[in-house]
Amino acid sequence: MPGKNVLIVYAHQEPKSMNGSLKNIAVDVLQKQGCSIIISDLYSMNFNAAATRNDITGELCNPQHFRYGAETMEAFKKGVLCEDILKEQEKVKVADLIIFQFPLYWYSFPAIMKGWIDRVFVQGFAFDFPGCYDTGLLKDKLALLSFTTGGTEEMFSKDGMRGDIRMA
Amino acid sequence: MPGKNVLIVYAHQEPKSMNGSLKNIAVDVLQKQGCSIIISDLYSMNFNAAATRNDITGELCNPQHFRYGAETMEAFKKGVLCEDILKEQEKVKVADLIIFQFPLYWYSFPAIMKGWIDRVFVQGFAFDFPGCYDTGLLKDKLALLSFTTGGTEEMFSKDGMRGDIRMA
Repeated sequence: MPGKNVLIVYAHQEPKSMNGSLKNIAVDVLQKQGCSIIISDLYSMNFNAAATRNDITGELCNPQHFRYGAETMEAFKKGVLCEDILKEQEKVKVADLIIFQFPLYWYSFPAIMKGWIDRVFVQGFAFDFPGCYDTGLLKDKLALLSFTTGGTEEMFSKDGMRGDIRMA
Repeated sequence: MPGKNVLIVYAHQEPKSMNGSLKNIAVDVLQKQGCSIIISDLYSMNFNAAATRNDITGELCNPQHFRYGAETMEAFKKGVLCEDILKEQEKVKVADLIIFQFPLYWYSFPAIMKGWIDRVFVQGFAFDFPGCYDTGLLKDKLALLSFTTGGTEEMFSKDGMRGDIRMA
């Protein structure tokens, strides 16, 4: 994919981990193909996972009754989201492909990565109504979930203890 | 349930929200039934969602290659998990019922609550192998997911845009 931009959202505490290696290999291979890579290394960034009032700078629309979704949507329109969200949104904007690299925690993203999704994918920026999915604001971008599990393949199969991972 | 202990893990920023009301009603009703209630109000507690080395106090088993799951399991056994995890584990230990009260964020828990699960349910404390689920360490405890959605009932139905919420 020469000339394409790739954002790797990476959530592992240990550079020498399997996840760290998978991230490094992705960088090598994609750079050789002529891609530009940006990495959001969430633990190194000490990325804040919690969706709070601090995500909006300046005045709230309704400080008496805080609604996170409504306030961040308005803040996005006015350009008053906080700095770390804006930075991540800039990375998403230019990305043709987003790779999520993480170890599965309780059948899902580690909280730090869930927080990236909760906070960065603000309504008006990442989605809106009507016009989701095929007609949505992130259309034409690709995404890849690359994750490791602490269990065996069998545990994550249809009849396994944890059910089919592809349905999660 | 007279004499029973209930832990409410609550994740909403706004006391006047629907989630806040549902939490308050649960407290009222359960107290009238003779239950003891403990609330973990995650945003008010500024609960840390990220799973890091700081969750282990003292020396790591392998500081050269940090493995969160292995290190926290050992730290649990040695009693050297960090204070906020220990406090939550004490609440879980005495709870007969745990209620998770939250707004659905991207079809799942808000990150701050995902972090509570990631960090509190340490191997050796909440689960182990073999012996999961019916024979696991949290057997005989009840759990209830009480959550609000930003979408319509139809969106979360089997043929809806987001698929069947009961399969999530």
